[in-house]
Amino acid sequence: MSPQPDEPSDRHDGLDAIFRPKSIAVLGVTNTPGTVPHDIFVNLLSARFQGVVYPVAPRKRHIAGVRAYDYVLDIPDPVDLAVLVFPGAVCEQALLQCVQKGIRAAVIISAGFREVGPQGLERENRIKAIAHEHGMRLIGPNCLGVINTEPDVLLNASFARAMPAAGQIAFLSQSGALCTAVLDYAQGKGIGFSKFISLGNKADVGEVDLLEYLATDPQTSVILMYLEEMTHGRQLIEVARRITREGDRPKPILAIKGGRTPAGAAAAQSHTGALAASDRVCNAVFEQAGIIRCTSLEEMFNTAQLLAYQPLPRGRKIAIVTNAGGPGVMATDAAIERGLELARFASDTTKKLKKALPAAANIKNPIDVIGDARDDRYIAAMEAVFTDKNVDQVLVILTPQSMTNITQIANAVCNVHKRFAGSGKSLACSFMGARDVAPGIQILQQAGIPHYILPEWATDAMTSVIRYREWLQRKPSTVKQYPARKAEAGAILDNAPDGYLTEVDALRVLQAYGFPLVDFRLTQSADEAAAAADETGYPVVLRIVCPKIIHKFDARGVILNLQSADEVRRAFVSMREHVLKTVSESDITGFLVRKMIPSGKEVILGINRDPLFGHVVMFGLGGLYVEAFKDVTFRVVPIDELTAKDMIDGLRASSVLRGLRGEEPSDVNAIEDALKRLSQLAADFPRIAEMDINPLIVHPSGQGAHVADVRIRLQTQ
Amino acid sequence: MSPQPDEPSDRHDGLDAIFRPKSIAVLGVTNTPGTVPHDIFVNLLSARFQGVVYPVAPRKRHIAGVRAYDYVLDIPDPVDLAVLVFPGAVCEQALLQCVQKGIRAAVIISAGFREVGPQGLERENRIKAIAHEHGMRLIGPNCLGVINTEPDVLLNASFARAMPAAGQIAFLSQSGALCTAVLDYAQGKGIGFSKFISLGNKADVGEVDLLEYLATDPQTSVILMYLEEMTHGRQLIEVARRITREGDRPKPILAIKGGRTPAGAAAAQSHTGALAASDRVCNAVFEQAGIIRCTSLEEMFNTAQLLAYQPLPRGRKIAIVTNAGGPGVMATDAAIERGLELARFASDTTKKLKKALPAAANIKNPIDVIGDARDDRYIAAMEAVFTDKNVDQVLVILTPQSMTNITQIANAVCNVHKRFAGSGKSLACSFMGARDVAPGIQILQQAGIPHYILPEWATDAMTSVIRYREWLQRKPSTVKQYPARKAEAGAILDNAPDGYLTEVDALRVLQAYGFPLVDFRLTQSADEAAAAADETGYPVVLRIVCPKIIHKFDARGVILNLQSADEVRRAFVSMREHVLKTVSESDITGFLVRKMIPSGKEVILGINRDPLFGHVVMFGLGGLYVEAFKDVTFRVVPIDELTAKDMIDGLRASSVLRGLRGEEPSDVNAIEDALKRLSQLAADFPRIAEMDINPLIVHPSGQGAHVADVRIRLQTQ
Repeated sequence: MSPQPDEPSDRHDGLDAIFRPKSIAVLGVTNTPGTVPHDIFVNLLSARFQGVVYPVAPRKRHIAGVRAYDYVLDIPDPVDLAVLVFPGAVCEQALLQCVQKGIRAAVIISAGFREVGPQGLERENRIKAIAHEHGMRLIGPNCLGVINTEPDVLLNASFARAMPAAGQIAFLSQSGALCTAVLDYAQGKGIGFSKFISLGNKADVGEVDLLEYLATDPQTSVILMYLEEMTHGRQLIEVARRITREGDRPKPILAIKGGRTPAGAAAAQSHTGALAASDRVCNAVFEQAGIIRCTSLEEMFNTAQLLAYQPLPRGRKIAIVTNAGGPGVMATDAAIERGLELARFASDTTKKLKKALPAAANIKNPIDVIGDARDDRYIAAMEAVFTDKNVDQVLVILTPQSMTNITQIANAVCNVHKRFAGSGKSLACSFMGARDVAPGIQILQQAGIPHYILPEWATDAMTSVIRYREWLQRKPSTVKQYPARKAEAGAILDNAPDGYLTEVDALRVLQAYGFPLVDFRLTQSADEAAAAADETGYPVVLRIVCPKIIHKFDARGVILNLQSADEVRRAFVSMREHVLKTVSESDITGFLVRKMIPSGKEVILGINRDPLFGHVVMFGLGGLYVEAFKDVTFRVVPIDELTAKDMIDGLRASSVLRGLRGEEPSDVNAIEDALKRLSQLAADFPRIAEMDINPLIVHPSGQGAHVADVRIRLQTQ
Repeated sequence: MSPQPDEPSDRHDGLDAIFRPKSIAVLGVTNTPGTVPHDIFVNLLSARFQGVVYPVAPRKRHIAGVRAYDYVLDIPDPVDLAVLVFPGAVCEQALLQCVQKGIRAAVIISAGFREVGPQGLERENRIKAIAHEHGMRLIGPNCLGVINTEPDVLLNASFARAMPAAGQIAFLSQSGALCTAVLDYAQGKGIGFSKFISLGNKADVGEVDLLEYLATDPQTSVILMYLEEMTHGRQLIEVARRITREGDRPKPILAIKGGRTPAGAAAAQSHTGALAASDRVCNAVFEQAGIIRCTSLEEMFNTAQLLAYQPLPRGRKIAIVTNAGGPGVMATDAAIERGLELARFASDTTKKLKKALPAAANIKNPIDVIGDARDDRYIAAMEAVFTDKNVDQVLVILTPQSMTNITQIANAVCNVHKRFAGSGKSLACSFMGARDVAPGIQILQQAGIPHYILPEWATDAMTSVIRYREWLQRKPSTVKQYPARKAEAGAILDNAPDGYLTEVDALRVLQAYGFPLVDFRLTQSADEAAAAADETGYPVVLRIVCPKIIHKFDARGVILNLQSADEVRRAFVSMREHVLKTVSESDITGFLVRKMIPSGKEVILGINRDPLFGHVVMFGLGGLYVEAFKDVTFRVVPIDELTAKDMIDGLRASSVLRGLRGEEPSDVNAIEDALKRLSQLAADFPRIAEMDINPLIVHPSGQGAHVADVRIRLQTQ
């Protein structure tokens, strides 16, 4: 069930019953340790839940020392949350009893639903209907459960092995088993969580509801997601965009999308029954929603740490302090490759460094305090860069030499960091190694200083953080509404049958939406064609219009560069004669006379309809090489002003349009304009299933662009 | 000093004295713990060195309980190896005394040489000269030292904090401080080393000498390097190629090259005085030498583990066994993206899986044994895939559910692995998490099963291993020697002044080396030009040849597509008239009449001379887009048959030449031919500093190619 805009308070109430219940009934508990129905009940108790837990276990007197009930209806007190661990087949009945008991929220751990095939899907639809009818909120089925680390709640309604530490990071996952790995992994890194949610099959509550809930959760400052399918695509974009950019406390969202490759998507489908959207559409959605896309857990948590514990730095200028040349070089390489910049120190900084460090030290960035450095040199170098206004971010690297006083240096780093807490500069550390450096790493982590085993991981995270900052600072951008003759286009688009529009109809639709077209006339005779050419002006192109002729050039159905009325007449006669050898008179719609388009760069604009996200606009450069490089950008309709610009700048070969080798730059404004008109047209007419403007010929800056060819395919949904 | 081919035994003897000494003098030891001169001596003792160590410390009676000597000459016994920890300024004198003492090898830990500027460089040159004169081998200066874990040696002549475990991996590093991080890092992963060498400034022994030594070292099966500059570039290629491909026991070499970016290279230069070769040349060198290039320590050790402990798998077909859907999806995505393939199971395998696993399990690849799986399911799934002949590599993933019996599963994995040891299939595991999974990981590591925290890292490593296997299986390829008129080319190339050759001379050089040229004549009059055109055949191009005219088209110095003798005459007259407005008669070398080249795809071939590696061949597609994509390949001269092919296939847009969108494929044989001729020409004439064939016009398959334009710049070295 999708959230309805008219019931926000209800929805929050429902989710509050899930995350902050006062009393919980666990339905289907057993006495066998090492099984889900048992462990989940024990987990609730051992996490020191700050309310009451009731085991429901037919024909059992007690479970783990707690009095058990045959049915949920037997519980003498009110219950806020039901956790179902019964076998899938029994869940429907159990849920109905929960309704009867007045329970408003449930977490269904049980498997055996959509993921096992048609019978399971039916079962899932039935519990969905029950929840919908009775205003009950559901997490699951087929999930690991839910965790809330708030001290006055302490809820571990999951079969994870341990309760995580409290922290500012919320994690949602569509894979239950991944959750357990993430919990263990995070524990090793000293990372805590605010909320931890296994989404399961998302019969009711999905990522959009949870994002809305977490947006106002005071414990959460960063949201992480592992998704395999995205439900409510459009809403996801809107909600994520709002959370990541707006309000007093915008929160970054990081996501991994499983099923990037066809084989991965097939695997995803087999285990959650998920239908994957195209991966390129996914990328577009994440870009437009401000979601930071990650490809591995390492990348996600590396970035999340920096976002959760450090200020958003002002810019890309990084200072590196290291006691080892090689790692300094490797960090520099990684920083530059990822788009950070090495800060150029103020002269005052250089003076301070010169004074404090030995002669053999490198006082340029990266600062090498040399292998035998102890805490004093680290302090001096850090103080210098933290006071330098050219520095936005600081990376401190340590390698364990025999004389390196690791824990003292770690403490010194924490002190300097504390003293410069108001500087707005972010700090990350890399104490390289494993055993010797471990005590130092622990000191850093306890002080909230993100630590990375490899300096490269720190620079990766720093880059993602800067990209998030740029997203925050992005100016508000609106969707431009062009004046368009919608009715005129509708007369064609609403009435044509499914399939391709004729060339002339397609051109007329573009005309109605103000696309840059050259003058054209559909003619039926040589004289008419010559007269038309006189009107449009020379040179002209003559083109056959005939649905049966697909490859016009091969069929001699196109003649270019006609310079006079006479030439047009002769061309008409010869073209007609030739095509009539293969098609009959009645197949020919007419002969199109069109002014020649001046030369320019060829680009391609397209529309596709995605089952989940609706219309998607595509943009790329024309030509063979571009096909070889697959260099195209996608965005979901509607696209705003800045997004149109992004689509052009997002091409790897966008420099071709910006003027390469001293060439005149192309009229990118004209391309942006066409992209936005295309978006408006698609938004107005859902029947458009596919559309290509191929090519749009773009002239030098200020001289506009012209549509050279267009295809529109309609398909009623 | 570079290794001389006529003294191989001497060189090995010298390095044996470094790695397997019976007695060591440490010069410059002090009594202050926490300083290099003290710690290094203590390290030697505490590593249980299987020989004698003598401290040399003027005016000290004893160091760490061991009798000390004022001078090395005072030591009453013979000494194999000197370890110098004196301040840099004293090293020269100390080294001379070592010579006097008859010591044949030294490790100079001391800093204060090339890395500190001109004075240090002089100092380094002096110790280099001493070593060279007396046939002494030197490691360093400015290094961390040397480690050999062989049980009958146990040498830790370094200031690392601890002796690493013994293992099959050798590590060389140009950054000393990186070594300590690597040692600690590897310890955390349970990785041992055979030899561990900090190269320092490489005054004498460099990576080439060490590779030669390690090639025959029975303890070493994989070699890792961190380099910032490469000395003896050509030798590196030859030696690495031999080690990685030839003999009874080829050994893979993995390397990180620090200083990939200009900022990184600058940082490298400031700390070791290294001069970095261009990064793209570096890539070419690694490709041609069979060295696996890594960009981080994680990547390097991940791959090294698989190479050291598992058999080289037959192919790219991977089977994944997991108890968690999400990680299975993520591993599949990563595997496919990196070029592995999911194995399609034999029907027998599917039957076995169906029988052994519960109904909810996914018996397709990736096999999901489901979250509540215990060891029995892992055993069944592993047995099934290990006996399936469609499977080359196996990846086992585990997430710690509350009922997951982690150590039992780890033991079961080890058992199955042992039983199928002869299968030739490689196994990698990913027990995801940190704390809960730690005991399981330890069991795997002790059994020599590579473990990765993230499944993606396993697939990365599997991909690198497969690439190494392909390198091993690569057919031997020779450098083709084309019949060429070398003397004719030499008459031009040996006698022309530094700078650009004239167009006609450049064409004649190409002619002498058999490049595909269209017929051309240099003419001086309209009649001569017309006669020349009659000889070459029509249509022709007329081009001015005049060193003062750079942009021929702008100066109307090129007229295309002349169809008759008359047209040639008229063109000649008008061109001459026009150019004489800006240059004088005597500036004009003549007028080139050249047959028009039929149309085709434009490609660019080039030569550059790298200070370290000599001539480098460059190949790319022509046109603006390709410039935007920077899609070019490089290889060091001479290039063999397969390498020429690699240069073409290595382009991201090579599909353009192979026939895209149903186009005819281009004549790639003609391109390969031109690349190999170019390589031969460059090898024959070191004076060629730069050369471009831009463009070479390539016709459809079987129809050859033609040089349209060429530039050659000479520069005597």
